[in-house]
Amino acid sequence: MAIIECIPNLSEGRRPDIIEGFVARVRETGVRVLDYSSDASHNRSVLTLAGDAGTLKAAILALFAAAVDAIDLRSHRGEHPRLGAVDVVPFVPIEGVTMADCVALAKQVAAAVADQFRVPVYLYEEASENPLRRNLEDIRRGEFEGLTAKMSQPGWAPDFGPSLPHPSAGASVIGARMPLIAYNINLNTDRLDVAKKIASAIRHSSGGFRYVKAMGIKVDDRNLVQVSMNLTNHEKTPIFRVFEIVKREAARYGVTILESEIVGLVPSAALVSAAEYYLQLERFTAFQILEEKLRLTDD
Amino acid sequence: MAIIECIPNLSEGRRPDIIEGFVARVRETGVRVLDYSSDASHNRSVLTLAGDAGTLKAAILALFAAAVDAIDLRSHRGEHPRLGAVDVVPFVPIEGVTMADCVALAKQVAAAVADQFRVPVYLYEEASENPLRRNLEDIRRGEFEGLTAKMSQPGWAPDFGPSLPHPSAGASVIGARMPLIAYNINLNTDRLDVAKKIASAIRHSSGGFRYVKAMGIKVDDRNLVQVSMNLTNHEKTPIFRVFEIVKREAARYGVTILESEIVGLVPSAALVSAAEYYLQLERFTAFQILEEKLRLTDD
Repeated sequence: MAIIECIPNLSEGRRPDIIEGFVARVRETGVRVLDYSSDASHNRSVLTLAGDAGTLKAAILALFAAAVDAIDLRSHRGEHPRLGAVDVVPFVPIEGVTMADCVALAKQVAAAVADQFRVPVYLYEEASENPLRRNLEDIRRGEFEGLTAKMSQPGWAPDFGPSLPHPSAGASVIGARMPLIAYNINLNTDRLDVAKKIASAIRHSSGGFRYVKAMGIKVDDRNLVQVSMNLTNHEKTPIFRVFEIVKREAARYGVTILESEIVGLVPSAALVSAAEYYLQLERFTAFQILEEKLRLTDD
Repeated sequence: MAIIECIPNLSEGRRPDIIEGFVARVRETGVRVLDYSSDASHNRSVLTLAGDAGTLKAAILALFAAAVDAIDLRSHRGEHPRLGAVDVVPFVPIEGVTMADCVALAKQVAAAVADQFRVPVYLYEEASENPLRRNLEDIRRGEFEGLTAKMSQPGWAPDFGPSLPHPSAGASVIGARMPLIAYNINLNTDRLDVAKKIASAIRHSSGGFRYVKAMGIKVDDRNLVQVSMNLTNHEKTPIFRVFEIVKREAARYGVTILESEIVGLVPSAALVSAAEYYLQLERFTAFQILEEKLRLTDD
């Protein structure tokens, strides 16, 4: 059974009835809605969907139909950067599918969105063939308000659809990526400089691990500091290696790890690989996990 | 969805056609056959089944019908101790069921077996209300050949069925228990005395952890020694605690852990709890595991 996860981000987080309407519309396609949440200050909602390629394509097109109708970027305000009504749509391989399958699906959906809704689409991450346009932040720089100007610059024609933004729905960014793990490590100290130095040591942008984004922040109500991270490819930069290097860097300042925390969902394999590492497990395969075995002999 | 695992042990491991016949008979009931394997020197086969209570009851009764017909203990020889044709039947709670549910199922199946096949049944482990008859080894002591004498001793009347063995099928032991994990740790040494001392330190019978059975053995073809274990309740004696104390005891002899190994199946929770321990994860719940979430929203 093929399972793809899809996490559309919508530029609407303040009108519960509208958001409920989006969710209801999406459910009609038969897709599984694992979760959804809205943030009023960001004025943004995030849905977590799961299904096979066909079901997800139908779900995302239904979502576009509803969102292009209900969201007008010209009057949209919020703290989070955004380009369009359906702002970002990542497809994530979970089970029985490859990254290549998700890339193919992203392109199919992008073509259909451009065709049916006249919304220009940029491909991103694994779906992008342009190394300068893999990174979401780069594509989104300038936001909706700067979109007309940006799209006319060399190298910024969209991958699909018209060469001007949709008047009210802007543009969309569609692509494929690995599951993202939101992972925080709390330190036994209130020294923000220590958290910042550790974040700087481990994140890709300043010389650290390839698939780590990190910052050091205060957790005010607990009088401690945190290394707050996104792990963007847990197979290539595993969670246990990040934990161990944070522990080691903290020790250099006489600081210890108080605890760590996974925010939201985590793929089972990311935890199993930590167990394998610490228990020095050899000759282990996922088929030995009882629940996996049960799932795979489900007939 | 309720899932119970059941691992019947049969006193036949040399006639492949007969064993295939058992498996086919069991499959007809709609039960999921996760695995089966036979050992000729033990003259014994082990099936791993999964299903809800009703399906498993039907499967085990079908298995008894076939095995009582095909197996004659009077001519059975093998290295493994045994009392009967269907020697042992444990029910193990996996998901959406309690141990109490499995105990109730064990008693129901035991009553039906006694009634339909005239095979006496002893309850064991969690299903036994007699503390002297919880342990499989105690019940099986004397084997098929000593059964008539044993059953007439005070305290050894069976829980269900006739007070004499079935002439060809002997008696059966049916019960409920936690999943069992076969876990081995290989040491960076060929000193058997070290493996034996560590096994002695950690096993319940000589003062160690409540839910650990252990012995020290040689792994001849690799010129090293192994602490070979059964973990009989991974919730109360977790795998990571056993690993850490073996590492600590080994260090006392200047020995390190080379690797560890899980033989056969392991419940996901046993690995996840190791990840939680080593990563110092707080506020984590199984619902954050993507695959669990997918399973639980399966509608």
